Amino acid sequence: MGLKSFVEVLPDSHFPIENLPYGVFKPEPGSKARPGVAIGDYVLDLSVIASAGLFDGPILCNSDCFDQPNLNKFLELGRPAWKEARATLQKLLSPTEPALRDNASLRQKALVPVDKAQMLLPIAIGDYTDFFASMHHAKNCGTIFRGPQNPINPNWFHLPIAYHGRASSIVISGTDIVRPRGQSYPTGNSPPYFGPSQKLDFELEMAAIVGPGNELGKPVDVNEAADHIFGLVLMNDWSARDIQAWEYVPLGPFLGKSFGTTLSPWIVTLDALEPFACDGPKQDPHPLPYLAEKIHVNYDISLEVRISPTGEEHSHVVTRSNFKHLYWTVTQQLAHHTINGCNLRPGDLLGTGTISGPEPESYGCLLELAWNGQKPLSLGGTTRKFLEDGDEVIFTGCCKGNGYNVGFGTCSGKILPSPP
Amino acid sequence: MGLKSFVEVLPDSHFPIENLPYGVFKPEPGSKARPGVAIGDYVLDLSVIASAGLFDGPILCNSDCFDQPNLNKFLELGRPAWKEARATLQKLLSPTEPALRDNASLRQKALVPVDKAQMLLPIAIGDYTDFFASMHHAKNCGTIFRGPQNPINPNWFHLPIAYHGRASSIVISGTDIVRPRGQSYPTGNSPPYFGPSQKLDFELEMAAIVGPGNELGKPVDVNEAADHIFGLVLMNDWSARDIQAWEYVPLGPFLGKSFGTTLSPWIVTLDALEPFACDGPKQDPHPLPYLAEKIHVNYDISLEVRISPTGEEHSHVVTRSNFKHLYWTVTQQLAHHTINGCNLRPGDLLGTGTISGPEPESYGCLLELAWNGQKPLSLGGTTRKFLEDGDEVIFTGCCKGNGYNVGFGTCSGKILPSPP
Ligand SMILES: [Ca+2]
Ligand SMILES: [Ca+2]
Ligand SMILES: [Mg+2]
Ligand SMILES: [Mg+2]
Ligand code: NI
Repeated sequence: MGLKSFVEVLPDSHFPIENLPYGVFKPEPGSKARPGVAIGDYVLDLSVIASAGLFDGPILCNSDCFDQPNLNKFLELGRPAWKEARATLQKLLSPTEPALRDNASLRQKALVPVDKAQMLLPIAIGDYTDFFASMHHAKNCGTIFRGPQNPINPNWFHLPIAYHGRASSIVISGTDIVRPRGQSYPTGNSPPYFGPSQKLDFELEMAAIVGPGNELGKPVDVNEAADHIFGLVLMNDWSARDIQAWEYVPLGPFLGKSFGTTLSPWIVTLDALEPFACDGPKQDPHPLPYLAEKIHVNYDISLEVRISPTGEEHSHVVTRSNFKHLYWTVTQQLAHHTINGCNLRPGDLLGTGTISGPEPESYGCLLELAWNGQKPLSLGGTTRKFLEDGDEVIFTGCCKGNGYNVGFGTCSGKILPSPP
Repeated sequence: MGLKSFVEVLPDSHFPIENLPYGVFKPEPGSKARPGVAIGDYVLDLSVIASAGLFDGPILCNSDCFDQPNLNKFLELGRPAWKEARATLQKLLSPTEPALRDNASLRQKALVPVDKAQMLLPIAIGDYTDFFASMHHAKNCGTIFRGPQNPINPNWFHLPIAYHGRASSIVISGTDIVRPRGQSYPTGNSPPYFGPSQKLDFELEMAAIVGPGNELGKPVDVNEAADHIFGLVLMNDWSARDIQAWEYVPLGPFLGKSFGTTLSPWIVTLDALEPFACDGPKQDPHPLPYLAEKIHVNYDISLEVRISPTGEEHSHVVTRSNFKHLYWTVTQQLAHHTINGCNLRPGDLLGTGTISGPEPESYGCLLELAWNGQKPLSLGGTTRKFLEDGDEVIFTGCCKGNGYNVGFGTCSGKILPSPP
C-alpha cells in the first residue's frame, strides 16, 4: 500500500504522493509560467507554496527558485535542495499536516485542476544530446542498413555513442509536428528526391535532465554522476528516416531529426525512482575505468507507445518496452559526456536513444517494428509502415509499486501535413 | 582612400569607420557587460551612446537593445535596425559631426581603449551548427581516411552537410583550451587507448551569426536568407582527431569536438562585407530549387593561421586561405538548415566548416597540412604533426579595401596539458 495524501489520488493515478514530479505550467492562459508538482488530478503551484513561506528548510527558505518561469535555478541547487523540497512537499500533502489541508483559501490558490493547467517546457535547454544506448536498437538498425554480419560497430561496446541534437525545436507534449520536407536518395541518375518525408517515424526514448553542471575542462566522476541528474522524462525523437539516410554520412543525423522533439511535461526525480532501481546490464567487455561504476543500476520503467490514426476514437498499442533494456546507464552517459572536459549546464537534456527490448513487440520505433517497411504493422483495420498525416503518437511510462504507481503521464504529438 | 573618423585609425587597422564590428565587453573588471563597436584602437560603448540619446532613428530611439549583456536583442530586430545603427554610428564618428567629437566628458566615457576592455562572447548561443562546406577540405579528409577513389560522398554535392555542435563549450578568443582526454582506436586486441588526445588539431573556420529567427515549421527562402544573417566571426573548431576517428561512426563527431570552440570577439556585419562580395562558386550539379539563389556570392576574406610554440617570441604562419573557397554559401547553408522546418533563433551560430583552399599551403587544419602526421610541418626550428601543449594558435582574417581594411582581428587560444 502506498502513502496517503489528503488530496484524493485514484489508485491508477501516475501521480501519488510517492511521485511528486516537477513541471512548469500556467494556471490560466494569461498568467505567468511557474513551477508545480503533480498530485493526483491537481498541480500544486510551488510559487504559491513558496510565497506562503511553507518551504521552511534551510536551503529553500530564502530562495526564489520557485518564482521562475523554468526549473533551471532549482536544478542548479543540487540534490540537497531536491531532497529538502521533496520532504517539505510530502509532509505538506500528508493527511496529518494542517498547514495546507485546513487553509481553504490557500488550497484554492495552490491546487490547480490539471485539466485547467497549461503545461510548458519545464526547463530552458542549453544543449541537447541524444545517445544510442539500447543494444537491441543498435543491432536492429545495423542489420536493416548493413546486413546481419557485424550489425554493431566495434566502438559501440566501449563507449556510449551519442550526437548533439537540436535544442530549439524541442517542444512540450501536445504540440503538433509538421511533417518535414527534405532531400532523400536519388533513384538511378535522377537528382535526389525532394518533398515531404515518406518515412516519418517516432523514437521511444527517455531523457535525463542535468542538475548542477560542471566547469569546462573538469570531468564528472562516474560515481558522482547521479548527483548531476535531477530526473527523467519521456521523449519522442521524431525522425525522418529517408532524410536521415541520405544526409548522415559522414557527420551524423541533422535535418532528419531537427524538425521536432517532444518531451513529457513532468520530470520524475531520481529520488522517486529509487524504489524501482534494478541491476544494470552486464557489460562485456568490461568498461574502461572512467566508465566503471560502483552502483550500476537501471530503472524498471514500463513503456508503451500507442498510435491513434486520424478520425479514430481509440488508439492502438504498437510497442511495449522498458527503460531497463538500456545497455549504457544514464550515469555512464553523463560521465562519458564530460570526460573530454565538456561542460554540462543545469537543464541540459541527455536522451537515451531509442529504447528497444529484445522481442520484436518491444522495438522502439516503426523502422524496427515494420522492418523498414517490409513488415507493415497492423493497426486495427489499417496498417502502418511509417507515420501518416493525422496520426497521433502517444507514449506512456510507469513504474508499478506495491499499491501505487510512479508514472510519467503521457508524451504525445500529432502529425500535420507538410506545407505545400 | 577610406572614409575618415575623428578617432585616429592607423592605415593597417582592421577597424576603420567602414567596418564598425560589434562585440560585448567590460570597460573595467567589475563593470557590467555591454555592447560596443571597434573603431581604431578604441571600443565605442553603445550603452553610453544609447543613454546619451544619440541613437535617434525611428527603430532604435526607444529600444533597450544596447542596455543588454549580449547582442541577441539587437540581432532580433533585423536588417532595418542594423542599417539604422550603422548610419547613426558612421555619422557620429565622422570628422564633421560635433555631438561626440566636441563633448569631452562623453568621449571619455564612450571611447574605451581596446587594451583596457575585456572582450566577452558577444551572443548567447542557443544552438551551434557546424557545416562542411569546403570541397577541398572534404576531398582531403576523404582521401586521408578512405583513399583517393571517390573521396567525397555523393550527397556532398547536393546539400550542405552539417552536424549539431556543442554550444556550452564555445569560448571567446584568448581562453585557454585544455587538451581533452578520451578513447581512441585500440591496437590489436587491446582495449581502446585512453588518455590525453595525441592528435589535437585546429580547424580554420568562420561562422555566421543568425539575426531574426524563423518559426518552427516555417522554412526561410534562400533568397531571403541574407536578411537572417547579422555577420561573421572567425572560429576555431578545435578537434581531437584520434577521439573523433574512434567515436564518429555512425552518429558523427561528439567528444572529439565538444571540449572547446573559440570565437573572435568582433562580429563583422554583412553590410561592412558588401564591398568584398565576389562570385559564388560554380555548382555542378545545379542545386535543387530550394538551394538555387538569385544572388550567389561569397566574400573575399583573406585568412591566416599562425602557431606560436611555447617559449618562442614569434609565431609562424602555417596556412593562408580565403573565405571565398567555400562551395556552399552561408545563405544556402541557412536555407538548407530550415527546409525541414527547423527553427533558428537570434544568436544561433552556423560554422562554415574548415576552410581549405586548393593549394597545400592553403589547407585549413593540421590533419591536412601535415597529411595525418605523414608530412610534419616545419615551424622554424621545430616541426608539428599535431598541436603540442603550450602552442598558441592565432587566426586572423581581413578584407583589403582601397586604402582601408575591413578586418576581424584575431581569434586565438593556447593549449594547456590534460589534467593528470
Ligand atoms: Ca534518437
Ligand atoms: Ca568543423
Ligand atoms: Mg528529434
Ligand atoms: Mg569544437
Ligand atoms: Ni621560431
